[in-house]
Amino acid sequence: MPRKPPRRTRERILERALQRFNELGEPNVTASALGDDLGISPGNLYYHFPNKEAIVTALFADFEAGIGRLLDETARVEVRLEDAAPFLRLLFEAIWRHRFVYRDTNDLLSRHRALETGLQAIVARKTEAATLLCRILAESGALKADADELDALATNMVVVATGWLPFEYIGNARRFGDPAFQAESVERGVRQVLALLRPWLDETGRRRLDGSSAPTSRGEPA
Amino acid sequence: MPRKPPRRTRERILERALQRFNELGEPNVTASALGDDLGISPGNLYYHFPNKEAIVTALFADFEAGIGRLLDETARVEVRLEDAAPFLRLLFEAIWRHRFVYRDTNDLLSRHRALETGLQAIVARKTEAATLLCRILAESGALKADADELDALATNMVVVATGWLPFEYIGNARRFGDPAFQAESVERGVRQVLALLRPWLDETGRRRLDGSSAPTSRGEPA
Repeated sequence: MPRKPPRRTRERILERALQRFNELGEPNVTASALGDDLGISPGNLYYHFPNKEAIVTALFADFEAGIGRLLDETARVEVRLEDAAPFLRLLFEAIWRHRFVYRDTNDLLSRHRALETGLQAIVARKTEAATLLCRILAESGALKADADELDALATNMVVVATGWLPFEYIGNARRFGDPAFQAESVERGVRQVLALLRPWLDETGRRRLDGSSAPTSRGEPA
Repeated sequence: MPRKPPRRTRERILERALQRFNELGEPNVTASALGDDLGISPGNLYYHFPNKEAIVTALFADFEAGIGRLLDETARVEVRLEDAAPFLRLLFEAIWRHRFVYRDTNDLLSRHRALETGLQAIVARKTEAATLLCRILAESGALKADADELDALATNMVVVATGWLPFEYIGNARRFGDPAFQAESVERGVRQVLALLRPWLDETGRRRLDGSSAPTSRGEPA
């Protein structure tokens, strides 16, 4: 019995495909170019993935699972303002890792119908999480807003979280592969989403939010 | 001397290209398919536009000019909260008319470098307009926020205005060609951008904003 080399090849293909899709955009990477790039024969590539769609679907499933785990964990713990920034940082990092999904979303959706429902589900779950956070803050009295205002706020949190990366791409397409730029962009994105929440909070809430947004030195007097 | 038939053909090509790009996404429409679609010979199409890039560039120039006029007009008049909703409605309608730009932005930018600077300029001008509005409101005392908060607010207004259409596409790709859906989407987009401004305003400001967001019957007592 072979000791699972196919598994390793499969992972190598996915890893390189993710890298190339992120760099060049999924529409600009063909399955055969990917095979050449990895030094894998068309037959071997085909053994693992019958077409590029299967690669896209597998990568999207990873993305979906990662975001799903993140949202599940958040749902399990008590929602606190202090957790908002660390949660958003993880969310933006997950989006960065699979940024090809947000680079050519509409084109991807029109060519890979399975992604359409998948991405809708992710947006729905993000909206649910944002709505839950806003409701809990409203019930605790830390956030003062009526039902319509809460809905609009939660939606805007998801619009900014979803649209931040494509927005940054417009101004910085050439720096998109640079890890330093990515780290800055994640921090800017976190700040923009928290800025949506801020005006609705009372003074205590704002201080708690500000305390969460930057890693502070522990043990110092507040 | 011929009576300018080339001009009419040129306009027919642009009109149909805009329609097809909006419907199918620019990457999915070839110049030759467009020629077939219009019953125009390759030679005649080539006479007007040597390649698809020239068509994309011409359409983008129209979009740029439309947005430019809108922002110029806004800069000429006194900035009032009552004008926010009508302005945003015109902005979203302009985006809808050239929605192919926002459908596959990243792909477009990577293939048509001239669009990169063009779109950057549009985002910069939108940010300028949003910042100006926020500053004037802050100076008049209607909006209470510090400089960082104003910057984050203006940026979020532009992120939501820019990202609204792609965001709606995720949930409603199949309804995107439907004029009734487009009208609803424009109204939702206006509401979402105004919702960003709302929490920063005092009571009078909120009432003025609310008064602007729906067309009200004139002459009735307020």
